[in-house]
Amino acid sequence: MLYFLSDYTEGCHPKVLEALTETNLISQPGYGEDLWCRRAADKIRALCGTEEDVYFLTGGTQANLVVISSLLRRHEAVVAAETGHINVHEAGAIEYTGHKVIALPSHEGKLDAGELDAYMAAFYADATHEHMPFPGMVYISHPTELGTLYSKAELTALYEVCRRRELPLFLDGARLGYGLMSPASDLTIRDVAALTDVFYIGGTKVGALCGEAVVFRRGVTPRGFVTMTKQQGAMLAKGRLLGLQFDALFTDDLYWRISREAVELAMALKAAFVKKGYPLYADSPTNQQFVILTKEQKERLEKDAAFNVWAPLPDGRFAVRFVTSWATRPEDIEALRALL
Amino acid sequence: MLYFLSDYTEGCHPKVLEALTETNLISQPGYGEDLWCRRAADKIRALCGTEEDVYFLTGGTQANLVVISSLLRRHEAVVAAETGHINVHEAGAIEYTGHKVIALPSHEGKLDAGELDAYMAAFYADATHEHMPFPGMVYISHPTELGTLYSKAELTALYEVCRRRELPLFLDGARLGYGLMSPASDLTIRDVAALTDVFYIGGTKVGALCGEAVVFRRGVTPRGFVTMTKQQGAMLAKGRLLGLQFDALFTDDLYWRISREAVELAMALKAAFVKKGYPLYADSPTNQQFVILTKEQKERLEKDAAFNVWAPLPDGRFAVRFVTSWATRPEDIEALRALL
Amino acid sequence: MLYFLSDYTEGCHPKVLEALTETNLISQPGYGEDLWCRRAADKIRALCGTEEDVYFLTGGTQANLVVISSLLRRHEAVVAAETGHINVHEAGAIEYTGHKVIALPSHEGKLDAGELDAYMAAFYADATHEHMPFPGMVYISHPTELGTLYSKAELTALYEVCRRRELPLFLDGARLGYGLMSPASDLTIRDVAALTDVFYIGGTKVGALCGEAVVFRRGVTPRGFVTMTKQQGAMLAKGRLLGLQFDALFTDDLYWRISREAVELAMALKAAFVKKGYPLYADSPTNQQFVILTKEQKERLEKDAAFNVWAPLPDGRFAVRFVTSWATRPEDIEALRALL
Amino acid sequence: MLYFLSDYTEGCHPKVLEALTETNLISQPGYGEDLWCRRAADKIRALCGTEEDVYFLTGGTQANLVVISSLLRRHEAVVAAETGHINVHEAGAIEYTGHKVIALPSHEGKLDAGELDAYMAAFYADATHEHMPFPGMVYISHPTELGTLYSKAELTALYEVCRRRELPLFLDGARLGYGLMSPASDLTIRDVAALTDVFYIGGTKVGALCGEAVVFRRGVTPRGFVTMTKQQGAMLAKGRLLGLQFDALFTDDLYWRISREAVELAMALKAAFVKKGYPLYADSPTNQQFVILTKEQKERLEKDAAFNVWAPLPDGRFAVRFVTSWATRPEDIEALRALL
Repeated sequence: MLYFLSDYTEGCHPKVLEALTETNLISQPGYGEDLWCRRAADKIRALCGTEEDVYFLTGGTQANLVVISSLLRRHEAVVAAETGHINVHEAGAIEYTGHKVIALPSHEGKLDAGELDAYMAAFYADATHEHMPFPGMVYISHPTELGTLYSKAELTALYEVCRRRELPLFLDGARLGYGLMSPASDLTIRDVAALTDVFYIGGTKVGALCGEAVVFRRGVTPRGFVTMTKQQGAMLAKGRLLGLQFDALFTDDLYWRISREAVELAMALKAAFVKKGYPLYADSPTNQQFVILTKEQKERLEKDAAFNVWAPLPDGRFAVRFVTSWATRPEDIEALRALL
Repeated sequence: MLYFLSDYTEGCHPKVLEALTETNLISQPGYGEDLWCRRAADKIRALCGTEEDVYFLTGGTQANLVVISSLLRRHEAVVAAETGHINVHEAGAIEYTGHKVIALPSHEGKLDAGELDAYMAAFYADATHEHMPFPGMVYISHPTELGTLYSKAELTALYEVCRRRELPLFLDGARLGYGLMSPASDLTIRDVAALTDVFYIGGTKVGALCGEAVVFRRGVTPRGFVTMTKQQGAMLAKGRLLGLQFDALFTDDLYWRISREAVELAMALKAAFVKKGYPLYADSPTNQQFVILTKEQKERLEKDAAFNVWAPLPDGRFAVRFVTSWATRPEDIEALRALL
Repeated sequence: MLYFLSDYTEGCHPKVLEALTETNLISQPGYGEDLWCRRAADKIRALCGTEEDVYFLTGGTQANLVVISSLLRRHEAVVAAETGHINVHEAGAIEYTGHKVIALPSHEGKLDAGELDAYMAAFYADATHEHMPFPGMVYISHPTELGTLYSKAELTALYEVCRRRELPLFLDGARLGYGLMSPASDLTIRDVAALTDVFYIGGTKVGALCGEAVVFRRGVTPRGFVTMTKQQGAMLAKGRLLGLQFDALFTDDLYWRISREAVELAMALKAAFVKKGYPLYADSPTNQQFVILTKEQKERLEKDAAFNVWAPLPDGRFAVRFVTSWATRPEDIEALRALL
Repeated sequence: MLYFLSDYTEGCHPKVLEALTETNLISQPGYGEDLWCRRAADKIRALCGTEEDVYFLTGGTQANLVVISSLLRRHEAVVAAETGHINVHEAGAIEYTGHKVIALPSHEGKLDAGELDAYMAAFYADATHEHMPFPGMVYISHPTELGTLYSKAELTALYEVCRRRELPLFLDGARLGYGLMSPASDLTIRDVAALTDVFYIGGTKVGALCGEAVVFRRGVTPRGFVTMTKQQGAMLAKGRLLGLQFDALFTDDLYWRISREAVELAMALKAAFVKKGYPLYADSPTNQQFVILTKEQKERLEKDAAFNVWAPLPDGRFAVRFVTSWATRPEDIEALRALL
C-alpha cells in the first residue's frame, strides 16, 4: 500500500530517533528545564535573528488553544478564516476556553488584509459593539489548510492592519517547513518572526514524534504562560522529549531538508496527476496536494494507495488529499504515477 | 552526580526505545487508530480481566483534567484529599475546567471512607445544599503523593461508599506499578479495575517517554470522550507514540519488572537512611522516599546527589524526597549510602 | 421626543407595578420559593396545557446562556441562524460557557428545516466528525431579530427534524407575546409548548421590569438546573420580584393584551411609513418595524423621534428600527405620522 | 408568624417603591445608560470622596463572580476565608469561571493580615510555585457571613499586605450598610473606598428589590468590563431598575437609616436572647444574630417565628440565625421576646 494519508503516519526521522537514543540515559530535570530545551530554543532564536521566547508543546490543537486562550482577554474573540483549522477541525477547542472564533471569508484558505481592516472599522462603528465579543487577535495558518501560502506582500499587509488595529497576529505553522521550503515561497523564517507576534514551528508533521515550538515576540508572551500550560495539561514531565527533537531538527538544517524534499516529491506527485489530466481541487505549492477524482477513479486508487477524502463534491466526484513527508520515497511517487 | 530527583529525569526504558525504533517506518493511521493502540488496549483489558474502554493520553495532569471534566456534570465538584495532586500541584487545572475540588482531610495522603460518607450525609442534610456545588465524583491517587498505599480493605470500603452515594471513583495511577509491586500491597490490577470506575496506568513515571493509559469501566465512559480529548488538546496526531510504548511496557511483564526493581532499590535506600539514624518524613513502601535532613546534612548531600526538597519544616529542617526508577542502578544506592 | 427606541425604555405596565405595591410587605421565602413564583408557574402550565417545569430568570441573555449551557454536553455546540441573537449580540456569552455557536443561513431571521437536516446528514457523513463539535441543540427566536415569524408548518417541520436528529429545540421568546398576538401568526402558546423542548416567555420586553419565564418540557429539565442558575449568578434572592410580575402579566390576559395592542400600533406605524412611500427593510408583522431612511430623512426625524439605527446600507441609506410597547400611545403614532 | 428568616423576605423599602412609581412612564435608554444610573453613580462617588467607576448588578453572587472573573488573570486564584460566601454557598460560581478559591483560616469569618502575608511568602518561596494557581486577589466580606466586622486597624493591615503583594482587595458588601451603621464599627464608607480596590454596596439586603453597586477604584476597572457583564448575563435591559433604586437609597440617607434601624433592632433581639440565658453562637454587632437553641427550644419557637437553622451542633443543639431589616418593626422584637 502506498501511504499518502498524512504526514503523521510514521514515527520520526531517523536522525531524531538517533538523538533520542544517544541521550536516553542522561539525567536532566523535568518540565522543560533540561539542556536540550534550552539548546533548541537558542537555535530557534538564532534562526529568527531576535530575542524571542520559545516554548515547546506536544501538538497543533494544543498549541492553538494554549496560545489563543493565554493571549486573549476574557471578552475577546479570535479572528480566523472560515476554513481555519480552529474554526473547523478542533472540536470547539477555542470555544471551550471561552472565546468565540470570528470567521471571515477564506480566499484559498487565506485572510485578506483589506477585509480584516473593513471588519474592524465596521465593528467599532457599530454603536452596539460593547454587546459583541471584541476582536482580540488574528489567527492564520501557513501553509493554510489547503496547502496555499501567503506571499511576503500579503503577510506584510496583514501584519500592518494587525499592528494598526492592535491585534496580535498568530501564525499556525504546523507545516511551516513545507511552506518556507516551497519554490513558491518568498518568505523566510526571519520574515515570519518579523511579521507576526507569535507563531509555531510544527514538529509533529515535519519529522518529529510530537512537538511544536511556540515562538513569542519578546514582550508579547503572556504573564504566567508556563503556569497556564500546566493548567491546560500541556506541560510534559519529560520535557526533554520535545527539546531533544527540535534540537535534532535544527541540527545540520534537518528541518529544512525534510521540508524541501517532501515538497519536491509533492510537486512530482502533482505533476503526475496534471499530466494525466486529473483536475486539481486547489493548486498547492506545498506537501499537501488536492486532486479531484471520480467515484471510479477513487475506488480504483484506494486499492493500492492510502489517501484522504477531503470533501464530496456536489457533482458526485471527490476532492482528495495526498500528502508527502520525510517518509515518502521517490519510488512511491513512481509507483503512484503507474497507477494513474 | 547521583540522580534521585524524580522518576522522569531520563528518557525511556531501553525496551520501549527498541519498540519505537523497530516500528519507526511502518505506516499507520493517526489519532490513536493504529494497530499498537489497539494491541496495547487489548493487553490492558486482558490484565484487568474485563471489557474496559482504554484511551491513551500524554501526561498525568492531562489525564486528570480530561477524565474529571468529562465525567462531572456542570454543577458538580470532585472530592479529593487535601494533599491530592489535583488540589495542590496542577495549577488550578480542574477549576479551569469549571469545577471545584472539595478537599477532605488527608490521612497520609489517603481519603477515609467513613469521613467521605459523613461528608455526603451532611451535604444532603443541609437545607441549602442546592446553593453548593454537588459532590459528583471522588479522586484518589495510588500510591498517594506521599508514596503511601490503600489496602484492599480501605479501597473496598471507599468504593462501597462511592457506589452507595453514586459517586464514580477515579484512581490516579501515575505511579500505579510502584504501588502494586510494593511488598506492602495487597492489591492487584484486577482489584483496581474492580474497585474503581476509572483509573489510569501511569507510563511517564514507569519507563515511558510520556503516556498514561486511562481505563474506564465499560458504561462509565462519557459520551463524546474522544471529541473532548481533542477539545482539550489531548489527542496526539501520532497516537502510535503512546500505543507503542504501552504495548512494549506490557510485553513480558516489563511494566511490573520496572516497578518491582525500583521499589526494591527504594527499600534499600530507605534502609540506608534509617540505619544511619535519619528520621523519615513518611514511611513509604513505594519508589518515593521521604527523609528529614538538617540544613547541614542537606547542603552536604546536595554536592553529590540530586534530590527534591519537599517542604521546609518549622524547626529549620527539611523534608526531602528521593525517587528511584528503571534508571536507578544498585550501585547508585551504594554510592548514596557511602555519602550518609 | 417620541420614543420608539425599544420596548424596554420605560418602567413596567401599571398593573405590574400595582402587584408589586400591594404585596410589598408580605413576607415570603427567597430564591424563588415564594407563593407568587408558584402561582405564576401554575398559570403558565395551565396556559401550555401540560406539566412543564417553569423557572424565572432576569433577562434574555441570561436565559439564553443558562438554558444552553445547562442542556449541552461538554463537546456539543448549539445550532442557530447566522442572525441569531446568541451569534451576534450577546458578547460571546455562549462561547464563554464553552460552547460553539454553529451558524446556519438565515432566512429573514429563520432557520430552514431542510437545511438543518442536510447539515446534520453531512456532519455525520464526515469521517472526521469526531474532530468537530457535535451539534447538540437548536436555538431559534420567535419573533426573530427581524420581527419575523415561523408559521406553524415551519415550526412543525423544524421540530420534526430536531426530534429525528435528537436535538432539543429551544425557542427564545424574548418577544413571544408580540409574535403570538400578531395577525400574521397561526401559532398559539400551546403550539409553542408542543413544538419545542424548552422556550421562554419574555417579560422584560412585554411589560415587566425584568424577567423571563423559562418553560422546560418535563423530562428535558437538566438535573441540577437550580444549582446551575446559582452558579451563573442568575438566581435572585428576592425571587418574588419575578414571580409577582409574571403572576400579574398572566392575570386577566394582561400579557396578551399588552402584546396585541403594541402590535396594532406597530401595524399603524408601518402603514404610515408605507403610505408615505418609505421602503421597508424587512416586512415585520410584530412590534419591531424596520424602515429604510435616507441620511436626510434620518437626520430630520431624529430631531423629534428616538429610534434605532439598525445597519448602514451600502448605498448610504440606513435601515432603522421603530419599536412599540405597552407604553406607546395611539397619539404617538399620529405624531410620528405627522413628521413623515 | 414573626419573620426573621432573612433580610430579603419582603419587597422593597416604600421610598424605593415610590421612586419606581413616580418615574415609571419616563422614557430612558436601556442597559444602564439612563439618567438614574448616572445620578446614583454620582451620589456614590460623592459618598466615597473620590473618582470611582460605579456599575450596577442584580445580586450578590453575580457581583462576586463578575468582579472576580474580570479581575483575575487566567492562571490566578482568589484568596478568601474558609467561611467566605464564595467558598461555601455560591454553587461553585467562581470555579465555574475557571478560578480556584484558595481558602485561608477564618477568624470569626475574617482573614488575618499576618496569615495572608505568611501565605504569600511561602507561596513564592516554594520552588514549584509555577505549578500552582497564583494568588491573584483577595476577597473579604464585611460584615462577614457571621455578622462580624473588620476594625479599621484590621482592614488597614490587610490592605497594606495586599498592596505590598500586589493583590487587589475586593470587599463583598452585600450587607455593607449594616456593617457601617453598627455601633461596633469604626469604619466609614470613605475608609472602605480608601482601603480596598473594589467593593460593592449591597442593595438587595438593604431595602432594594434587587441590586448591588460595584465600586472600582479608578484604574482598577478591567478593560472590557461592560462587555464582560453582558457576557455573563449580568446586564439588565432596563438598567434603570437598578439606578433608580440606588438613587432612592442614597437620597436623604435612606440607606444609612434603614441600616441603622435594623441594627438597633438586632441589638435589642440579641439582648432579649442573652437576658433569657440563651448562648450566642457568634457575637455579631450587625443585623444577623446567631443564637444556640436546644431541639425543644427550636421546635417551640418555630411555631411562631421564622428563622434559619445555620448549623446542627455536635451536641444535638442548633445554631440558628435571626435577621432584621427595614421590614422589621419594634413590635416584632417585643413579640419575639415574649416567646423566649
